[in-house]
Amino acid sequence: MVWDAWGSPAGHQPLPEKIRGLLAQVFGVSGEPVARRDEGDVPLRPSTLTDAHRAGLVAVVGADHVSVDHRDRLRHAGGKSTLDLLRRRAAGDQDAPDAIVFPADHDEVLAVLAYCAENAIAVVPFGGGTSVVGGLDPLRGQFATVIAVDLRRLDTLADVDPISGTATLGAGLTGPRAEKLLAEHGLSLGHFPQSFEYASIGGFAATRSSGQASAGYGRFDDMIQRLRIATPGGSLEIGRAPASAAGPDLRELFSGSEGTLGIITAVTLRVHPVPETTAYQAWSFPDFSTGANALRSVVQTGAAPTVLRLSDEAETGLNLARAGDIGGANVGGCLAITTFEGTAAHVAARKAEADALLAAAGGTALGETPAQEWEHGRFNAPYLRDALLDVGILCETLETATSWSNLAHLKAKVTGALTDSLTAQGTPALVMCHISHTYPTGASLYFTIVAKQTDDPIGQWAKAKHAAGDAIVAAGGTITHHHAVGADHRPWMTDEIGDLGVQVLRAVKQAIDPTGILNPGKLVP
Amino acid sequence: MVWDAWGSPAGHQPLPEKIRGLLAQVFGVSGEPVARRDEGDVPLRPSTLTDAHRAGLVAVVGADHVSVDHRDRLRHAGGKSTLDLLRRRAAGDQDAPDAIVFPADHDEVLAVLAYCAENAIAVVPFGGGTSVVGGLDPLRGQFATVIAVDLRRLDTLADVDPISGTATLGAGLTGPRAEKLLAEHGLSLGHFPQSFEYASIGGFAATRSSGQASAGYGRFDDMIQRLRIATPGGSLEIGRAPASAAGPDLRELFSGSEGTLGIITAVTLRVHPVPETTAYQAWSFPDFSTGANALRSVVQTGAAPTVLRLSDEAETGLNLARAGDIGGANVGGCLAITTFEGTAAHVAARKAEADALLAAAGGTALGETPAQEWEHGRFNAPYLRDALLDVGILCETLETATSWSNLAHLKAKVTGALTDSLTAQGTPALVMCHISHTYPTGASLYFTIVAKQTDDPIGQWAKAKHAAGDAIVAAGGTITHHHAVGADHRPWMTDEIGDLGVQVLRAVKQAIDPTGILNPGKLVP
Repeated sequence: MVWDAWGSPAGHQPLPEKIRGLLAQVFGVSGEPVARRDEGDVPLRPSTLTDAHRAGLVAVVGADHVSVDHRDRLRHAGGKSTLDLLRRRAAGDQDAPDAIVFPADHDEVLAVLAYCAENAIAVVPFGGGTSVVGGLDPLRGQFATVIAVDLRRLDTLADVDPISGTATLGAGLTGPRAEKLLAEHGLSLGHFPQSFEYASIGGFAATRSSGQASAGYGRFDDMIQRLRIATPGGSLEIGRAPASAAGPDLRELFSGSEGTLGIITAVTLRVHPVPETTAYQAWSFPDFSTGANALRSVVQTGAAPTVLRLSDEAETGLNLARAGDIGGANVGGCLAITTFEGTAAHVAARKAEADALLAAAGGTALGETPAQEWEHGRFNAPYLRDALLDVGILCETLETATSWSNLAHLKAKVTGALTDSLTAQGTPALVMCHISHTYPTGASLYFTIVAKQTDDPIGQWAKAKHAAGDAIVAAGGTITHHHAVGADHRPWMTDEIGDLGVQVLRAVKQAIDPTGILNPGKLVP
Repeated sequence: MVWDAWGSPAGHQPLPEKIRGLLAQVFGVSGEPVARRDEGDVPLRPSTLTDAHRAGLVAVVGADHVSVDHRDRLRHAGGKSTLDLLRRRAAGDQDAPDAIVFPADHDEVLAVLAYCAENAIAVVPFGGGTSVVGGLDPLRGQFATVIAVDLRRLDTLADVDPISGTATLGAGLTGPRAEKLLAEHGLSLGHFPQSFEYASIGGFAATRSSGQASAGYGRFDDMIQRLRIATPGGSLEIGRAPASAAGPDLRELFSGSEGTLGIITAVTLRVHPVPETTAYQAWSFPDFSTGANALRSVVQTGAAPTVLRLSDEAETGLNLARAGDIGGANVGGCLAITTFEGTAAHVAARKAEADALLAAAGGTALGETPAQEWEHGRFNAPYLRDALLDVGILCETLETATSWSNLAHLKAKVTGALTDSLTAQGTPALVMCHISHTYPTGASLYFTIVAKQTDDPIGQWAKAKHAAGDAIVAAGGTITHHHAVGADHRPWMTDEIGDLGVQVLRAVKQAIDPTGILNPGKLVP
């Protein structure tokens, strides 16, 4: 990925003319992109890695796999939140890990961690580099040096069990590469988060990722059968059966541990046959409340589409539901997308049941085209965000989840907090929202915020984000449904799990990582 | 419950004549029941509760709610495993908690724990008293005194949210009482383990219970939205949303904690409307392997019956699949049971899909009667076990789970270990098995073992159980799928989670229960 934006250079396009027109009209910005720095010209905080430590790390992974190269360091400087990108685009020095280490396998990860624990070097595990919550910030904690441990070489499909429908995937495999390797066996994982094209298997597990097909295939944590984890104190292999009553489920302690309790090196996952068929159906609802009730009826009845999502009036109006076509035809009301995957009989039965429920709940069928268009453009939003940043527009997302009965309240409170904060800063905002993950008892809310940047866009968004976080907690939502905690959500973790919950996390960390080298400043308050 | 057997006296029936004939033929036992002791006559280890401690506990819960009564102590002496019942039926003194405390609510539980931590008194949390793994053994650890904290007064339906499909239930509610309170709101939990009639909501959560309708409604841990837990160091309230990426899921640390990390006082659970309709369909398969593959095709396709189970040839032959009718008509092959609950449209669609898959996989439809009979008699097996114990027959169950591809191997190894161990002791055994819980990636195996008792039935079963546990671990199964760990499975916990996993559990326990009063000798090696 490029260092100061999302994705590959090929994905970057100038804003379409009609969007530039819209921006001029709504925000009064010219739409002319600002110049960005070449990464070679960016001043970087000097590496603190000593020659002795470099030699020590080289002894573990080989000279070719320890880098203090300027570009390598910049590309491991953090994640891809709007704050990250604003910081990288700001003038002045950049911070970055003091070195990047590329271990070959589990045993090398183990040896790197043992070396770093012995030598007081902080470690940031690095998968696809797609964190949007500061999970990859090169924080040193009490240490002089921090390294990134890049897992890209752990990229094998180690084992496939087609009878049980499981596969063991290396932590460094990206989403597309994992799907490609599985497809050679007629299998698919079905995990398609927004970050799919770059994010890694280990990162999905470490952050409790949830993909756009979660209604059908579950969250990533639901798919995990077994985890292999390297820690400073040795290896863990957890998960002996699809389900067990042998005490606490320790998989659930390391899922979402965000590199603070060890480095996940391999994940055995539930997979499924590449679907025989996929059916698509889009719907329009007169308002968000009617649409949300319709989705609820589907998921509570068990009709189980593969994808089930609903954009609110604002998002539908701007057509951000189809991110590649912002400013396109406005379908009005609230757009919902359903898809159904599996055997032909399964798809037909589920679609018939869901169609009947959605129609009965006030939906108007829009046919398959809008759903296919959504699928086609579903990984484009981060590129659009970059193009907006380029022309002086702030664009960011945040997300939460709550029970069905609390959904409207939470949505109103978060929307209000964002709108009030940005308006008070003199930059009226568009706040859009969709439901992208549904459960029998509740749903997620995913907000997209667009506003004109102030002279201090970092401070501007920090204030708005803080207001939103406080509103989420006060309104009974979770501080994050699938973006994870990192450094950015850490201030709300005590609200989330209580003082005693924090003590439990600290006790586990102390047992596994007594010197505290693992991802300092993240997750654990 | 009666002190030395399952359930209420009304449930106890002498063995039917045809079973007595079968026992005489197979095992050469006369079938005459032995006399059992009246609980009033049983010599009991004297209570070590001091007057000062009694006064201290009375100060917390009131004089009416602290008991050192002989019958109360006997009825809290442990669980309902065959070993428990054999020990209670053996001559000699019985051990029991030194007192029973009946707190009224969460705050009283909290105060009891604080008092016990301060005064070095061990605590066994007590729900329905149905543990079959020694989870309720009155072990004192390093303490002079152990009390049982009986949660029966925490018996309210505190909150119902029909929109979200959730309800908050007191830990002391039994299965039937919880269903009755929910039914007043048109709701049901759908959790029907063998222990349903006596076991409690808190116990289900603390042991990761799984009910007979797990294919449709999930395991109990799947249903948990929120836990309220009292610990010596204060309260925990965990679970803010249906799903979250806010770090490790601490609910999964306290689910299955078996009273070693605190006392669960209330559980917010996913519930569903009382089903509009239920459909039943039984099937016969020529052999277990064909049947298992058929079940696998159903669960991997997502056809989702509510109940999905398969008895092996031995169990089908003895018709233990219909426990109330042992020795009845032999349907031959392997009997499978399916039921479908929900809306009429949902049930019809699911049943059509599952029927087609089961027929295609080699099943012969047997109609609805055998499935209805199974449902009618499904809570009777423990009574039959008691009647068998009475006539000198050993009868016990154990269970495990593994991946689909490992299922036949695990079944053969466990069957072999049990058969070999009992045969070597001179008591050839019947070992029967069924699949009662299915997942896309694997299934549970539930074994029922019947043999003639030796002169030392406790030693006899201890040997067989040990052989089975070793075989389970060696063959890659989990030491328990839904019975939990307690004292009996603790020797295999290090095999299950590894040395580092054990260290993690110990660290959590140390943080929450630094004096170690909570259920000593259980779960944590």
